[in-house]
Amino acid sequence: MPYFDAASAAPLHPVARQALLAALDEGWADPARLYREGRRARLLLDAAREAAADAVGCRPDELVFTPSGTRALHDGIAGALAGRRRAGRHLVVSAVEHSAVLHSAAVHEAAGGTVTEVAVDRTGRVGAGAYAAALRPDTALAVLQSANHEVGTVQPVAEVAEACREAGVPLLVDAAQSLGWEPVGGGWSLLTASAHKWGGPSGVGLLAVRKGVRYAPQHPVDERESGRAPGFPDLPAVVAAAASLRAVRQEAAEEAARLRALVDRIRARVPELVPDVEVVGDPARRLPHLVTFSCLYVDGEALLHALDREGFSVSSGSSCTSSTLTPSHVLRAMGVLTEGNVRVSLPRGTAPEEVDRFLGVLPGVVAEVRGALGAPAAGAGSPSGEGELVVDSLGKRCPIPVIELARAFGDAPVGGLVTVLSDDEAARLDIPAWCEMRGQEYVGERPVPGGVAYTVRRRS
Amino acid sequence: MPYFDAASAAPLHPVARQALLAALDEGWADPARLYREGRRARLLLDAAREAAADAVGCRPDELVFTPSGTRALHDGIAGALAGRRRAGRHLVVSAVEHSAVLHSAAVHEAAGGTVTEVAVDRTGRVGAGAYAAALRPDTALAVLQSANHEVGTVQPVAEVAEACREAGVPLLVDAAQSLGWEPVGGGWSLLTASAHKWGGPSGVGLLAVRKGVRYAPQHPVDERESGRAPGFPDLPAVVAAAASLRAVRQEAAEEAARLRALVDRIRARVPELVPDVEVVGDPARRLPHLVTFSCLYVDGEALLHALDREGFSVSSGSSCTSSTLTPSHVLRAMGVLTEGNVRVSLPRGTAPEEVDRFLGVLPGVVAEVRGALGAPAAGAGSPSGEGELVVDSLGKRCPIPVIELARAFGDAPVGGLVTVLSDDEAARLDIPAWCEMRGQEYVGERPVPGGVAYTVRRRS
Repeated sequence: MPYFDAASAAPLHPVARQALLAALDEGWADPARLYREGRRARLLLDAAREAAADAVGCRPDELVFTPSGTRALHDGIAGALAGRRRAGRHLVVSAVEHSAVLHSAAVHEAAGGTVTEVAVDRTGRVGAGAYAAALRPDTALAVLQSANHEVGTVQPVAEVAEACREAGVPLLVDAAQSLGWEPVGGGWSLLTASAHKWGGPSGVGLLAVRKGVRYAPQHPVDERESGRAPGFPDLPAVVAAAASLRAVRQEAAEEAARLRALVDRIRARVPELVPDVEVVGDPARRLPHLVTFSCLYVDGEALLHALDREGFSVSSGSSCTSSTLTPSHVLRAMGVLTEGNVRVSLPRGTAPEEVDRFLGVLPGVVAEVRGALGAPAAGAGSPSGEGELVVDSLGKRCPIPVIELARAFGDAPVGGLVTVLSDDEAARLDIPAWCEMRGQEYVGERPVPGGVAYTVRRRS
Repeated sequence: MPYFDAASAAPLHPVARQALLAALDEGWADPARLYREGRRARLLLDAAREAAADAVGCRPDELVFTPSGTRALHDGIAGALAGRRRAGRHLVVSAVEHSAVLHSAAVHEAAGGTVTEVAVDRTGRVGAGAYAAALRPDTALAVLQSANHEVGTVQPVAEVAEACREAGVPLLVDAAQSLGWEPVGGGWSLLTASAHKWGGPSGVGLLAVRKGVRYAPQHPVDERESGRAPGFPDLPAVVAAAASLRAVRQEAAEEAARLRALVDRIRARVPELVPDVEVVGDPARRLPHLVTFSCLYVDGEALLHALDREGFSVSSGSSCTSSTLTPSHVLRAMGVLTEGNVRVSLPRGTAPEEVDRFLGVLPGVVAEVRGALGAPAAGAGSPSGEGELVVDSLGKRCPIPVIELARAFGDAPVGGLVTVLSDDEAARLDIPAWCEMRGQEYVGERPVPGGVAYTVRRRS
């Protein structure tokens, strides 16, 4: 049963499992205690820290273990901002950071700080120049991911780090998606990661703070982990995290090349096999194991369920799969289609046959979901007073507004306008994205009672 | 090799180990995902929450899992204080709470809040009346432990909860030490606990917030755990924590009675076997498995090391065993002797023979440490101008100032004064405690160049 959502959580690596079991027996005591069980725990903790620091590329005393990647980001951003309070209260992030970063930024803004979100291009990549231009004399901290968690695009960390160095601004790199593949190069100041992304156990994040970086922890005082991660350490999980990081790194180059070829196959074949698909993200500068595509006229949740019935576990950034019913902020920032979105992230060891079976199943599954929704062939739509077709999709959820737009489009003359009325958040993204994919002209939007009117001109 | 520090961390319960192993295979995926691995993880998480809520005595939707007991306290106190900000910014805690509570209180005070620390008696017990008297119209939150982690004294939670209810103040109960033995009775509003105290794995704390209690999480927004505990959940550890809590509760009544008898034996025998010992804490209203005593003229760290060499793992609240070189705030609040302090906390399954062997070894070990320090027989001390013996212990660490006081005491006439000059923090506590134990009169302290002068009058 192929599990293709390694970017959410990778199955436990055998080395992690083995190390965890050993450490359950040897590492349950308090490493701060003076007796033999405590000393044994301390030895394990020290060894784990050395191994993890070696993989990160920092000194052991620069690295602490946190309860998760999210907590590493929350605490790391708060600590770095507070440590640089004298410099100012301006924070720079990219628009496609993990939600833990954006939510930290929101807290900072609510507390009176200022935040600049650097935009990305249609591949999800930050421009190093645009990032550098966002740095100001009062910038306390800059945050940039090493690679994007939803579309796999690798960010220009080294160039941004150089710009930050010149501006005297510390750079925090969120390396959650890439650390299992390789160390982060360039002159970063802080780095965070999450063990269950590389096959380590859940319950372990990493926070590295380079010597000389101003840092003021914002949680209550606690003696553990250099005062940077309060609470009793989950030592067996920490030991397993460090051991598995070393193990996956040993296999990383070979496995990355293998998975990269499988992802290339998906990137090439999906548009051939499935009509009206947009494969997103940078085709070359990307994570080896991750690919994302969106299917026009498809309900993401229905697609996920249909794939699940066929035995494939994938995730989606479509609005219907989110508890808040808003599309992924990453897809939104890229300006790409959000409906019928599928993220495939291959765990280590994925067999080529599994990928082939996925490619074999996908076209039928998409067709089935489209069929159930009545995806476009000929369409409705009533001429308005100004020779403009108006489609009332108010109250209808993604992907229905785009399906109704496409249906109505057949009735519009070349040069004519079609306007869709919608109160669905995804329509704002998906109607322009549909125009881009179809080579039609997106005219714009205007508010109307109960929603928004999106207008498109037929070009061909 | 007897491990007698269960109050720091209990060895993993066999049920916890078994549940953890099973959940490593079934519970590594993201419980928020829609595919089968995610649904399986969700089922495990829901079942663990139900089991833990049942043991706590609350509804499953009132309970979240945190990365540690410390984080449960930090986040719980911050959230409860913020939720009641309109009521006021006054916080009530007891003087013997866990450092995670006192450090949270310090953060609150630094941010402009006010804090009242309710004193305890010589047994470490809070007076319910004194606690009630500390509640004010602007009190936002009251915090009280169910039982003390250093001396085992059980607190009057039900009475304090009733007083809080009458005052309209929510009560947070830190149940870290007692939850494995029994649920917390009385009308608490919030409750915290820590799994590795009951034989669960490290990496799991509990935070229960009753429906209707105003609560505003202070960390960045996160959808996990009702928005109250950010980060990917450590599901295998959570499953193990819940399963072991249920298991230890089933054995709790019988095992508590058995360990209570063993602790009674220690409480009775230690003062018979070792001269100049103070057994502290409430002899009856106490945790079943925990006892603490202090030995005059003994260096706590040397005592711990000597016991460790004999194979016994215990902890200590003496200043020399703390990284900050200050004595335990609990012993300080109780006004008892802090030097030569030993906490014995028996894990489940401790054999009577292990306790007997400890009692057999202890007198020799204490005598050895006392011998090495030159504990009192005859002493030094030079008469001062006013017929007062002055002992200069400046620059000497606990327990030397008390040893030198005791040595000099033999030279003082009945009714005469002995003054010890000391710059050691522990002397402020241990010289009055020595007087109490010896039936001598503690006159008082005054500042002198380089330290403090502590004066004692010989009564007999």
